[in-house]
Amino acid sequence: MSTDTSAGVAGDAAETASAGTVPGAPRPIAEIAAAAGIPEAALEPYGRHLGKIDVDQLPPGEPAGAVVLVTAVSPTPAGEGKSTVTVGLGDALAAAGHRTMIALREPSLGPVFGMKGGATGGGGAQLVPMDRINLHFTADFHAITSANNLLAAMVDNHLHHGNSLDIDPGSIGFKRVLDMNDRALRRIRLESGGGRETGFEITAASEVMAVLCLARDIPDLRARLGRITVGFTRSGSPVTADDLRAAGAMTMLLREAFKPNLVQTAAGTPAVVHGGPFANIAHGCNSAIATTTARRLADVVVTEAGFGADLGAEKFLDIKARVADCAPTAVVLVATVRALKMNAGRAKDELAQADPAAVQAGLPNLARHVANVRRYGYEPVVAVNRFGTDTDGELAVIERFCAENGVRCALTEVHSRGASGGAELARHVGELLGTRPSYRPIYPADAEVEEQLEAIVRTVYGGDGVELAPEARAQLERIRAHGWERLPVCIAKTQYSFSDDPKLLGAPSGFTVRVRELIPRTGAGFIVALTGTIMTMPGLPAAPAAEGMDVLDDGTTSGLS
Amino acid sequence: MSTDTSAGVAGDAAETASAGTVPGAPRPIAEIAAAAGIPEAALEPYGRHLGKIDVDQLPPGEPAGAVVLVTAVSPTPAGEGKSTVTVGLGDALAAAGHRTMIALREPSLGPVFGMKGGATGGGGAQLVPMDRINLHFTADFHAITSANNLLAAMVDNHLHHGNSLDIDPGSIGFKRVLDMNDRALRRIRLESGGGRETGFEITAASEVMAVLCLARDIPDLRARLGRITVGFTRSGSPVTADDLRAAGAMTMLLREAFKPNLVQTAAGTPAVVHGGPFANIAHGCNSAIATTTARRLADVVVTEAGFGADLGAEKFLDIKARVADCAPTAVVLVATVRALKMNAGRAKDELAQADPAAVQAGLPNLARHVANVRRYGYEPVVAVNRFGTDTDGELAVIERFCAENGVRCALTEVHSRGASGGAELARHVGELLGTRPSYRPIYPADAEVEEQLEAIVRTVYGGDGVELAPEARAQLERIRAHGWERLPVCIAKTQYSFSDDPKLLGAPSGFTVRVRELIPRTGAGFIVALTGTIMTMPGLPAAPAAEGMDVLDDGTTSGLS
Repeated sequence: MSTDTSAGVAGDAAETASAGTVPGAPRPIAEIAAAAGIPEAALEPYGRHLGKIDVDQLPPGEPAGAVVLVTAVSPTPAGEGKSTVTVGLGDALAAAGHRTMIALREPSLGPVFGMKGGATGGGGAQLVPMDRINLHFTADFHAITSANNLLAAMVDNHLHHGNSLDIDPGSIGFKRVLDMNDRALRRIRLESGGGRETGFEITAASEVMAVLCLARDIPDLRARLGRITVGFTRSGSPVTADDLRAAGAMTMLLREAFKPNLVQTAAGTPAVVHGGPFANIAHGCNSAIATTTARRLADVVVTEAGFGADLGAEKFLDIKARVADCAPTAVVLVATVRALKMNAGRAKDELAQADPAAVQAGLPNLARHVANVRRYGYEPVVAVNRFGTDTDGELAVIERFCAENGVRCALTEVHSRGASGGAELARHVGELLGTRPSYRPIYPADAEVEEQLEAIVRTVYGGDGVELAPEARAQLERIRAHGWERLPVCIAKTQYSFSDDPKLLGAPSGFTVRVRELIPRTGAGFIVALTGTIMTMPGLPAAPAAEGMDVLDDGTTSGLS
Repeated sequence: MSTDTSAGVAGDAAETASAGTVPGAPRPIAEIAAAAGIPEAALEPYGRHLGKIDVDQLPPGEPAGAVVLVTAVSPTPAGEGKSTVTVGLGDALAAAGHRTMIALREPSLGPVFGMKGGATGGGGAQLVPMDRINLHFTADFHAITSANNLLAAMVDNHLHHGNSLDIDPGSIGFKRVLDMNDRALRRIRLESGGGRETGFEITAASEVMAVLCLARDIPDLRARLGRITVGFTRSGSPVTADDLRAAGAMTMLLREAFKPNLVQTAAGTPAVVHGGPFANIAHGCNSAIATTTARRLADVVVTEAGFGADLGAEKFLDIKARVADCAPTAVVLVATVRALKMNAGRAKDELAQADPAAVQAGLPNLARHVANVRRYGYEPVVAVNRFGTDTDGELAVIERFCAENGVRCALTEVHSRGASGGAELARHVGELLGTRPSYRPIYPADAEVEEQLEAIVRTVYGGDGVELAPEARAQLERIRAHGWERLPVCIAKTQYSFSDDPKLLGAPSGFTVRVRELIPRTGAGFIVALTGTIMTMPGLPAAPAAEGMDVLDDGTTSGLS
């Protein structure tokens, strides 16, 4: 596998050979809404089984529900079944009598057609209807794509019609996006746009996605969009979407997309699915408004952050939890036999072979993630997500490690057994729900960008520090000049390593992280740090999953996973 | 106005200074469906006021409804209110007791944010809710964009991974699309795609749009997508979407989009709104499946084809009517005082000044369109769409022309007066519904491409013939070599003139039409002829309409028209 095909892969299709429970027919979404306390006036149906929640029509209520964050060890390319565990845990908590909602991210078409598949979980722990959720869903990503590309078109149109703002074309950092893995669009020259060089990113990496995910309400959405910096004038002043008079129309394009989506699990647990994946190249958390809405409706909200805890959980805990005031009550760390074997250096095609020694050799990766979660103030529950090829001896290696280190551990079999396979995990989480952990971000809110980078690299990644490339250094000067240096940093990094080198598996040390670029995302309110060779537009593999997909004459789909 | 900003403008916002009737609140879409004979099982709601029709769940029935085609004289940049007349005529026919459905095309975001506005009619004759229909609607265009761009990504991915099909990169005619006016994307160089030159078109011009609009059912959709030619091998063989194994996944992306959308007029008449506009750069008719579905449900189906009758009506009558077996029973030709003044050479900012002599001088344009409609076998009804600035003296010029030439004529005031303003037009149309006109396409079904071009240019456009540029000539050789020379031709041409020169107004003669390119669209089943300087990706004007749009704090939109 070439790294470029997985640069933006997210979502977590479960990967197991065990027979999955076949889900029953979904219930009408109005029934799910009613059971969740959503009045009819607040539900907008999209087909029979999808709906949007009009938050303004909900009864008043504080967002008091406890948040359970599901994160993972450093993953394999196929993912560790984090979405599956999140769904299964939600179903198990609901079965145990907790008033529960699940809060997940929306799938991207990139991995659906590329390699990793959709993002609806799998087997006995999945969102339904998976085909509708994985394909277009309620068109939120398309609305984000449109809003992003309207701004981009207005930038080039401004240049075309005389450039009265005196924008320096070489300074334009705002790119176009598509929800597609399309390598050829990474770098393009606009032959009909003055020869300017630019490129496309995948929609999940759009600043508009981050804005939608972090905005509190429509006025905040409008204001954040207006603050997006597209580039700089020749005299060095930032040029924003408001300067281009684009933010009103962008908000208009996002008005429906900003409403959280409601679906259900195969077991009937309500789930809000809203906002973008890709914690490697974006902040990769579900939307703040969805989390807040779920916390108004439920006592427990189970949510997920993407890839390993160094990426998704770091961004959830250092960025989203502060912006949306949603620090978790409990943290679940998904570990798999396969991932630990990969972290011990085993090849992808060897991961199905019984090899307890390899699992043992991969434990330092788990250990570092456990230590990191503890640094944030949490006692993690390790959810050992069982795959069909795992042996009892391999699973025992992880359980022994947890026992020896005083870490809560639960064998999780939600893919093959549904909610009952998550009962042990739900019991551990249930015990933590009564606690009041002391959440501690890794860096203080007033830390400067370099200080933040050093803190994350040394503390979370286990590295020796940060090296800024000349371009990043120049960008940092500009960031300081405009007073943005205390915005939180959102690191784009490979998901395969704690370092910026996807080949340094396990728990590497003695490395420095090279920051290529520091891009101010003044609408989202963070600084993107591009590290290593990470790319914000993935490519398709040699045999894309799309090749195996079809629609039968009766309209049913085949090959979608 | 630079021509490039209007290259792809379509839809027909009404332009009148008269006070419009304020529409009431829309009824629940389930009520509209029930009244139209659509059983509950066949309606999929999208929000409260939009729905999709699952055609397979409809009761059996032949498509027996009579089709009324609304077309127009050569238009002004703002449009002649063709959609408004179509809606008003539908409302008036319904008020007169006819079981009526309206069949329109979906709006494109290009004109919404550019200059011309949405495509939902206006005043007392409009579709509701206009904001939802004009912005994203049920995401059909986004699905088409995704399906188109998945194929494009798979083409470049195939080149990247070794090009085992031996595709000649220089031969790739299939482009990416966005539903956006974005001039800078017309020509791009893929710096990360081998340096290949390509470009973006607006989504309405995508072959995938044409395929969706012309397909009979899902198997036909699947088969047509598979036949799309993306380029040629180095030895000259066509390479199709099926060769790239992309068509199954593309069909999957289009499964929901292929279902016709149901909305209502402000007066409560049911309307199916499905398929793309832009009869200048696409075939520009609503979808065949929507027309057929409406004809199963209603006795009269009022539909529209884009721009002047030389574009939309020609394509409806020579292409769509044959593919979908939906030859009209009556043809309405919308004429306006403003358009005739423009055709007499008056400047855009002079069109509001009373000038009966200019209207008189513009009559040859109307006369040629009337003669053309007669050539297809129809006695047109001229609908004089009254604008607030029209004077009685100007209107009388058109009425006198019609009287002198034995042409049915109806003053139409549906924008200001709703259905009652269309009663006279509905009376004329109602009289024609009992007739059996002898529909005659301009060229026989077995005519070759050049023969078709000559027939259209000489007979419909009034020109002296066709000149093929060297590239078009080479493409024609290739078309012949592959046996595609009897596919119908779909001409891309300026909407401002019968000729390919937007400055030749009125009823020009003595011109030849220069064909730049002949592009085989083997999935759609036609050959696109690019003429003059027409471009398939419009640009934004110096002050795009988007600049005046916003969302208020209560979530309502402003500035959308």
